[in-house]
Amino acid sequence: MAAGPEETFTLPELRKDPIVGRWVIISTDRAKRPTDFTREAVKMRGGFCPFCYGNESKTPPEIQAYRPQNGGPPPQKDSPGWTVRVVPNKFPALGIEGNLNRQAEGMFDKMNGIGAHEVIIETNDHNATLATLSPKKIEDVLWAFRDRILDLKKDKRFKYILIFKNHGEAAGASLEHAHCQLIALPIVPIYVSEEIEGAKQYYIYKERCVFCDIVQQEMEADARVVAENEDFLTIAPYAPRFPFETWILPKQHESAFENSTSHMFENLAKAIRVLLNKADQVLDNPAYNLVIHSSPTQDSANDHYHWHIEFVPKLTRTGGFEWGTGFYINPTPPEEAARFLRAANVEEAAGVAG
Amino acid sequence: MAAGPEETFTLPELRKDPIVGRWVIISTDRAKRPTDFTREAVKMRGGFCPFCYGNESKTPPEIQAYRPQNGGPPPQKDSPGWTVRVVPNKFPALGIEGNLNRQAEGMFDKMNGIGAHEVIIETNDHNATLATLSPKKIEDVLWAFRDRILDLKKDKRFKYILIFKNHGEAAGASLEHAHCQLIALPIVPIYVSEEIEGAKQYYIYKERCVFCDIVQQEMEADARVVAENEDFLTIAPYAPRFPFETWILPKQHESAFENSTSHMFENLAKAIRVLLNKADQVLDNPAYNLVIHSSPTQDSANDHYHWHIEFVPKLTRTGGFEWGTGFYINPTPPEEAARFLRAANVEEAAGVAG
Repeated sequence: MAAGPEETFTLPELRKDPIVGRWVIISTDRAKRPTDFTREAVKMRGGFCPFCYGNESKTPPEIQAYRPQNGGPPPQKDSPGWTVRVVPNKFPALGIEGNLNRQAEGMFDKMNGIGAHEVIIETNDHNATLATLSPKKIEDVLWAFRDRILDLKKDKRFKYILIFKNHGEAAGASLEHAHCQLIALPIVPIYVSEEIEGAKQYYIYKERCVFCDIVQQEMEADARVVAENEDFLTIAPYAPRFPFETWILPKQHESAFENSTSHMFENLAKAIRVLLNKADQVLDNPAYNLVIHSSPTQDSANDHYHWHIEFVPKLTRTGGFEWGTGFYINPTPPEEAARFLRAANVEEAAGVAG
Repeated sequence: MAAGPEETFTLPELRKDPIVGRWVIISTDRAKRPTDFTREAVKMRGGFCPFCYGNESKTPPEIQAYRPQNGGPPPQKDSPGWTVRVVPNKFPALGIEGNLNRQAEGMFDKMNGIGAHEVIIETNDHNATLATLSPKKIEDVLWAFRDRILDLKKDKRFKYILIFKNHGEAAGASLEHAHCQLIALPIVPIYVSEEIEGAKQYYIYKERCVFCDIVQQEMEADARVVAENEDFLTIAPYAPRFPFETWILPKQHESAFENSTSHMFENLAKAIRVLLNKADQVLDNPAYNLVIHSSPTQDSANDHYHWHIEFVPKLTRTGGFEWGTGFYINPTPPEEAARFLRAANVEEAAGVAG
């Protein structure tokens, strides 16, 4: 376990694989030894919850919180009364203080593990999930993402901001209370840069955004559409790696999440709510991962990349060789997945197709 | 479940992601529906074992087997008496008969899921594991790999042959009896082609093989060496994605596994045995994946790519966002992993360092 705020924290190392150029974070602080690995490494911690009202002192001091004011006294930091709260991760994968200090180690390359690792607590209700929150509350979570991105963008050491959610033990969550994570990185993760590079190549060849083309083709074909509203299209992608993998795409071109209009956040909240409730219904409350794919932090708005959300329910225990090869066998055609998800009847599903 | 040999088998589809260019296999035959996914999808099937002596008729007819002849009558196919046996996978991810039939689907690309999917049964002993086999028996398994590669290489539809082992339920194995899998593909998996491309770029710049440079630097530095013998070096790589990730590299440059000399197979068997026994000792018999990375099937021997084995014990339950981003946090520095593995004392470990 990494250190709490008052303890010494040694910076982790970022190391680059010399063959494919992939950077990884190596925790050099209190390294995990063989006996630290239990067979089921991630166990949900039960009992005491540091994300509930009244336990604000058990997290590192808050970075940001939304506290509705109803004419009473001004709200106090690290006190109850919040609706969304952002705190530093108590066991950060990266350290916020210091310089990158890029260095060679013989033929290898490394730098200090500088970055931010934050937790966005989505609700004060311990028993709620992102799926059960009202669209308005989900929208608040999205605004919190945006606020944190805009703040961290000012730090020029950071090249990419990753926002993701692990829901359920099988998806890697270690606390039950609904939360997302944010990691600001001094590098762009390799698949993200490959995705951007692929989109750029398509743009060079066609002078159109590949995601815009996908939106248009999928809306015409209809076979893989899960839901849609005024601003967002939810689809099972044409070549999904995983059964019931689903993407939420803005219908209008936009390269970065944080540049979305408030109207879009309103409809994105609805689209997320609809998808999560459909998945809960069809797949019986699955564990899942949800990742926001957006442009690198220091890039300006561009015509070739199109931000979107990727949702993957954790249904299969994939053989680790997929990690090594990028070779996937998906047992469920996306047309089938879309058919089941589309048919699920979700309440408050304004603008849902099917 | 796909079809047995006597049932109808519809070819799966290979579909290409239009953004990153990754091909995936979509099983269109008896697609998995939501209710087919249990929470723990892969369950080890107990009881009856189709890979044991006497049950040869329960697998599809054998492709190849080693049957030691001791002057008796000539051995019969699909009968007991074998030491290593290769059979088609009863539930193949790809179909062997047919044409690729590359096609567009609007902006998307697809082809028929043509390929071979075979199982290499490593031993007739139901209770043995690859780690407990003698070096000679492991060598026989390696020869079976080579025989199958040389045979399948003749089929020009196949661009890549993937040999891998899922050991243990947590690593994706569905049968306990020790076996590997072989998949011949009409495409090169995306990470493999990225690895080859990375090695090519390094070669263009340095006029040296990046893996040869790694072998040399790691032997000098020693900090990440797990074991070595005359022909092979076993190391924890500099930038591993996973705790205790380990690679076995031939010391001399060789681009394809199947071009190895018999002397090398003898030493590779020893190197594999040593690594697996060290891992069993240090990590308490972990589930693991082992993948052979070799040159694409139709490529001739080259100076830039260097075949090797990647071994990853399944110790952590990684959040699925790693799949989406290529972003890994490794809690164990490779120097620590190497130190533990090197210290493990393994019997019959001829040529082991430490």
